[in-house]
Amino acid sequence: MDALQQVSAYWRAANYLSAGQIYLLDNPLLTEPLRPEHIKPRLLGHWGTTPGLNFVFAHLNRIITERDQDMIYIAGPGHGGPATVAHAWLEGTYSELYPDVSQDAAGMRRLFRQFSFPGGIPSHAAPETPGSIHEGGELGYSLAHAYGAAFDNPDLVVACVIGDGEAETGPLAASWHSNKFRHPRKDGAVLPILHLNGYKIANPSFLARIPPAELAKLMEGYGYRPYVVEGHDPDQVHPLMASTLDAVFNEIATRPEHLPMIILKTPKGWTGPKEVDGKPVEGTWRAHQVPLSEVRGNDEHREQLREWMASYRPEELFDETGRPYPEVVGLVPKGARRMSANPHANGGELLRPLVLPDFRDYAVAIDKPGTASTSPTQVLGGFLRDVIAANPHSFRLLGPDETASNRLQAVYEATGKEWQAAMLPTDENLRPGGRVMEVLSEHLCQGWLEGYLLTGRHGLFNCYEAFIHIVDAMFNQHAKWLDTAREIPWRRPVASLNYLLSSHVWRQDHNGFTHQDPGFLDVVLNKKASVVRVYLPPDANTLLSVADHCLRSRDYVNVIVAGKQPVLDLFGREEAVTHCTRGLGIIDWASNDAGHEPDVVLACAGDVPTLETLAAVSLLREKLPALRVRVINVVDLMRLQPPAAHPHGLPDAEFDALFTTDKPVIFNFHGYPWLIHRLTYKRHGHDNFHVRGYREEGTTTTPFDMAMLNGIDRFHLVRDVIDRVEGLGVRYAALRQEMTDARLRARSYTREHGEDAPEIRDWTF
Amino acid sequence: MDALQQVSAYWRAANYLSAGQIYLLDNPLLTEPLRPEHIKPRLLGHWGTTPGLNFVFAHLNRIITERDQDMIYIAGPGHGGPATVAHAWLEGTYSELYPDVSQDAAGMRRLFRQFSFPGGIPSHAAPETPGSIHEGGELGYSLAHAYGAAFDNPDLVVACVIGDGEAETGPLAASWHSNKFRHPRKDGAVLPILHLNGYKIANPSFLARIPPAELAKLMEGYGYRPYVVEGHDPDQVHPLMASTLDAVFNEIATRPEHLPMIILKTPKGWTGPKEVDGKPVEGTWRAHQVPLSEVRGNDEHREQLREWMASYRPEELFDETGRPYPEVVGLVPKGARRMSANPHANGGELLRPLVLPDFRDYAVAIDKPGTASTSPTQVLGGFLRDVIAANPHSFRLLGPDETASNRLQAVYEATGKEWQAAMLPTDENLRPGGRVMEVLSEHLCQGWLEGYLLTGRHGLFNCYEAFIHIVDAMFNQHAKWLDTAREIPWRRPVASLNYLLSSHVWRQDHNGFTHQDPGFLDVVLNKKASVVRVYLPPDANTLLSVADHCLRSRDYVNVIVAGKQPVLDLFGREEAVTHCTRGLGIIDWASNDAGHEPDVVLACAGDVPTLETLAAVSLLREKLPALRVRVINVVDLMRLQPPAAHPHGLPDAEFDALFTTDKPVIFNFHGYPWLIHRLTYKRHGHDNFHVRGYREEGTTTTPFDMAMLNGIDRFHLVRDVIDRVEGLGVRYAALRQEMTDARLRARSYTREHGEDAPEIRDWTF
Repeated sequence: MDALQQVSAYWRAANYLSAGQIYLLDNPLLTEPLRPEHIKPRLLGHWGTTPGLNFVFAHLNRIITERDQDMIYIAGPGHGGPATVAHAWLEGTYSELYPDVSQDAAGMRRLFRQFSFPGGIPSHAAPETPGSIHEGGELGYSLAHAYGAAFDNPDLVVACVIGDGEAETGPLAASWHSNKFRHPRKDGAVLPILHLNGYKIANPSFLARIPPAELAKLMEGYGYRPYVVEGHDPDQVHPLMASTLDAVFNEIATRPEHLPMIILKTPKGWTGPKEVDGKPVEGTWRAHQVPLSEVRGNDEHREQLREWMASYRPEELFDETGRPYPEVVGLVPKGARRMSANPHANGGELLRPLVLPDFRDYAVAIDKPGTASTSPTQVLGGFLRDVIAANPHSFRLLGPDETASNRLQAVYEATGKEWQAAMLPTDENLRPGGRVMEVLSEHLCQGWLEGYLLTGRHGLFNCYEAFIHIVDAMFNQHAKWLDTAREIPWRRPVASLNYLLSSHVWRQDHNGFTHQDPGFLDVVLNKKASVVRVYLPPDANTLLSVADHCLRSRDYVNVIVAGKQPVLDLFGREEAVTHCTRGLGIIDWASNDAGHEPDVVLACAGDVPTLETLAAVSLLREKLPALRVRVINVVDLMRLQPPAAHPHGLPDAEFDALFTTDKPVIFNFHGYPWLIHRLTYKRHGHDNFHVRGYREEGTTTTPFDMAMLNGIDRFHLVRDVIDRVEGLGVRYAALRQEMTDARLRARSYTREHGEDAPEIRDWTF
Repeated sequence: MDALQQVSAYWRAANYLSAGQIYLLDNPLLTEPLRPEHIKPRLLGHWGTTPGLNFVFAHLNRIITERDQDMIYIAGPGHGGPATVAHAWLEGTYSELYPDVSQDAAGMRRLFRQFSFPGGIPSHAAPETPGSIHEGGELGYSLAHAYGAAFDNPDLVVACVIGDGEAETGPLAASWHSNKFRHPRKDGAVLPILHLNGYKIANPSFLARIPPAELAKLMEGYGYRPYVVEGHDPDQVHPLMASTLDAVFNEIATRPEHLPMIILKTPKGWTGPKEVDGKPVEGTWRAHQVPLSEVRGNDEHREQLREWMASYRPEELFDETGRPYPEVVGLVPKGARRMSANPHANGGELLRPLVLPDFRDYAVAIDKPGTASTSPTQVLGGFLRDVIAANPHSFRLLGPDETASNRLQAVYEATGKEWQAAMLPTDENLRPGGRVMEVLSEHLCQGWLEGYLLTGRHGLFNCYEAFIHIVDAMFNQHAKWLDTAREIPWRRPVASLNYLLSSHVWRQDHNGFTHQDPGFLDVVLNKKASVVRVYLPPDANTLLSVADHCLRSRDYVNVIVAGKQPVLDLFGREEAVTHCTRGLGIIDWASNDAGHEPDVVLACAGDVPTLETLAAVSLLREKLPALRVRVINVVDLMRLQPPAAHPHGLPDAEFDALFTTDKPVIFNFHGYPWLIHRLTYKRHGHDNFHVRGYREEGTTTTPFDMAMLNGIDRFHLVRDVIDRVEGLGVRYAALRQEMTDARLRARSYTREHGEDAPEIRDWTF
């Protein structure tokens, strides 16, 4: 066989294995007549996209083998599982990782049976699939993942098949522009292959129906040089694809600044049934899922399936033991060059720990806690600057145009922002090869970072808190990937996905209601406890400690909420480490209950709620000196959950000792208050918890007015104490009124002067 | 003055008013020397985008006046508030709606003072802003909103200014393709104006830095004919913009199938300070917010501000009373033609109630509840078909390629799917002018629908439940808009945004873990109680009743979760209405506690949890006939909250009467279980609530296995009853074991046969 004949045979084998996965329980080699009991009772799977995915993979294997090219493969189209699994089996990787799915008839039977079967494997290129860093479940992220994988891998080519359905999504539409952020020599190449098979579930895709010249302009407008491969007849499309790929890879090798892409137009469900029950199937949306839907009960359908599978001539592809003939897999690359075994697609194999400077060296010196103020993110910026300097090829800082706005600008002392478009003399901090990625798309930041992490590197995504909701769905999918991947023995741990949410709800007073939303935490805490972590460091030193911890962790999603505006320094260098290690604790210097049960617990999580809590305590100490107050700060939100619900959960006995089981707990929280109730409702003292937090009240105003609007301010807290500690209500009605008056005064001052009253702005403990 | 001189004078006036809003507390006409106390203490606002927004608005006014064109204006760039507010004031609309902000010096002073000031107005084109249906807070949605506004408004032109920052986002990148869904004669025109001022907060925008020919190809590839207007010198750019707009509007008027767009390249912060403190400002990112940042304390900055504002020659623009001279506003259109007063931008003014057939006519006839099964969404499809037929110009059904998959295909008996690209003979249900919009982008579905609703029409967005998270952030912003708008007297109520979430978590067994996520409800319930509503109808008839209710409602976001797979018919036609009106209630025929306190309450919300609850009750009735069981179904989730938390909240006395205060409540929930705890933690009996729901366990398996994996199945529920009703645990250890065995048997059957055991599939009450 010549190379193209080998490609063709391999393609037929992959198509055969794909159809078999969708349909067969047994009789994998069709050595017996096809009977109803050989057919799965529920036919699940998606044939439509599969032959195209197989076609591309087969051809890329020739390129890898001929050029010893380092390459991974991203299957963007939804439900492309039958294809990617078939290749891993043909390449031998599947049997190496799952020995019971051997490369023989028994293994083929298992391969078929397990697909979309209870206890088996999903219909996507999932974490279970060797060679995959991308799941074609929720669509839109393949190309962003591909770029993320290519960054800092100059010798790698990431082949990315984009379905024409996926191409209609917003994130994918933006992802084409990732080329403006790809360094031609320091980063690898991405080869987008837009696979126009013409249809989605029930509709044509519009990119397949606009004039070809318009589509070509679109790709050129995105900055790519499009090559078109189009046809129905495999005998014609095979040589066309081969010569196109030769040209494309020559271009990639010799002119790295060029960006070729391929428009592949082949029929949906190519080589499958042409017509079923008198209706056209191949080349229409009817090929999307199972082209023949009643194979078990309908003899005609079953015969059509047999003919279809026989059309691949399995007897030429597999020997009588079920093993592929050597010529069929003659172009399969060796070892780690196999796309199903490439270590970039199991990034933990390549992961090296970050070289981290000692975060203690960046700590703010504190004479007396609660007196001086510092911007936490600004301090973190210094640490990140040196993290970047120490890890010039394996750490990236991403953000939607907000890195300086979030006060991390110290990083520009060590690096710049990646930029591949034109530059002007007035530009600052732009630098080809820079380690900061800024694009006004949270989707791209998230997608790039996911691709970068899953290929074994590290990073941090800094974002305005409210707008991180833009990637809720992407976070969900990544958390599900991690949750599944950590159960797969051959998947090595990868670096955690770290979010720094700054410019948060309490300091978006100037940007208004649209910029005020702390609800990402609620989304995050819906995901598996084994995967998610949420931290609310109240000052600069605790932020440093938390950030260091997160950068060392593996297989988590870490969410850090920290302000950019100066807040009181509360914890000294070592105290911060201790406090963060515990995750929560009593602030001794603010409490006056030493040696006793307190009368009331004031708990807090988040920088602004902590400040207001301390201000309330200061008022209480002045006005009610006999009241025993305990102040608890919570950094690690998961400590509140019972140990059965989260591995960080504080044992009940310790929780009870801290929060008491019978004293009022006034909890001042950064986010929506019901989140605290949700985390603590099983705790003994829960009925005594009174939680304040963001109640969706907001506008353009001042910081303290934001606190007042939502009732997390010191005056509300003091009133809560009076209302809830037994016996105070009657005796301290005047003090209660005083608090109300103070609030009204603060409000009036603000309305008149446009700023917070000086005594509130300049407050210290 | 000739027309262009008038445009120029109007533009200077708008720029003057914009700068005044950002800086001045007093001395609005600069009739006195500018002193520190005239300056706002906190300088908030964004100058950078403003002169460009003003420039476009001024020129469009000439077009409207000369052609009597019906037009609205969407200000996409972030923080464009100073511009849109200035126009509403110059056009007189502002003073009509807010009489204290009169069109004179006193009103101008108030106009300036209130901007980004506590108790004042936000920095975006917010709900408070006359003429706006779009808030430039979270970026990405302007163009989708514009298309939504244009649909079914054939005489309208929607001018949409797109910032070059926003243009980097995914949703915006996809929105260009909305033209494939715009009917050239039945829909209005959208005129995108891509405003390249070159910078975001801290970076250049890449579309401003790619070669102009590449950008032109991109726009042509998107299907538009680009016109370029570029320059720094107003004397040159004014005539160029005018002649371009003449050409563009001639094209729109005579060739409606053409889609012109404008690329406008002018400096960021145009006409503002060229240099501040020795650094270039105009034309750089430094013009993004306040170009002069220390105007109160720095005499030089203050003098620069005075010079800058004086450069607009206010004495030529406003008479000594502060009123604009007639020539300055000579091109301002009259009455409702003013873009700040166009009724399309206050859609409630144009809203007509839907003509709704009687939903009872579509109800499933029920002999005996719990015996026959029906697909709820299929029944709804028949109703929606006739809603569409009865409202051919004011109702649209949107979905990401899933309308038929969600079993709503009956609508195709009355209409088709809008499609403006090429068609093939094999296509089905595509039809130019069709009322169903299908595009594989949740962002576009959401954005189009928001634009359609805010301009006074109706619609329903059907979506796979898991993937609605893609638009979490858009939902958040729309809910905030509604929350604010309902407090503004001149904003008329608009139709609610209705979601139908189908293909939900419990029936995504075949699509696997990536498709399983009921967490949108948690996001929704974080928003204001006055705006959000969540319904979980358990069968076809309740779905009809709920849908009818939602389609009649105003100013809400309604979320309906309903399955497409057949479920037991539980409620007859009238029973369904009663049950949905109550929002929750006892299912009498399933309960056996009549006249007594129950021993246990089995509560449920959602179709699959309800089925499993009934199955558990059926087992209990058989095995423990003496046990008094009360079954409660919850349709309206907000009934669980206290009345103080939500207007639908059930009074405590009624809640206690239903759920008891001391009996175990086993609550089987559709979504994440903690949501029920969050809603009920203030209820007296809360400590007795044991909630089951989705615990983030999932894979590709069978429906009943999904239930078992997450513990919402009948066997778990019976065990819960045994464990929680006092005295049962010891006596019924054998029954408990029987349940465990039944579960293991069901599981084994599934693993072996690939489907649920027949007795589980065919179950009826």
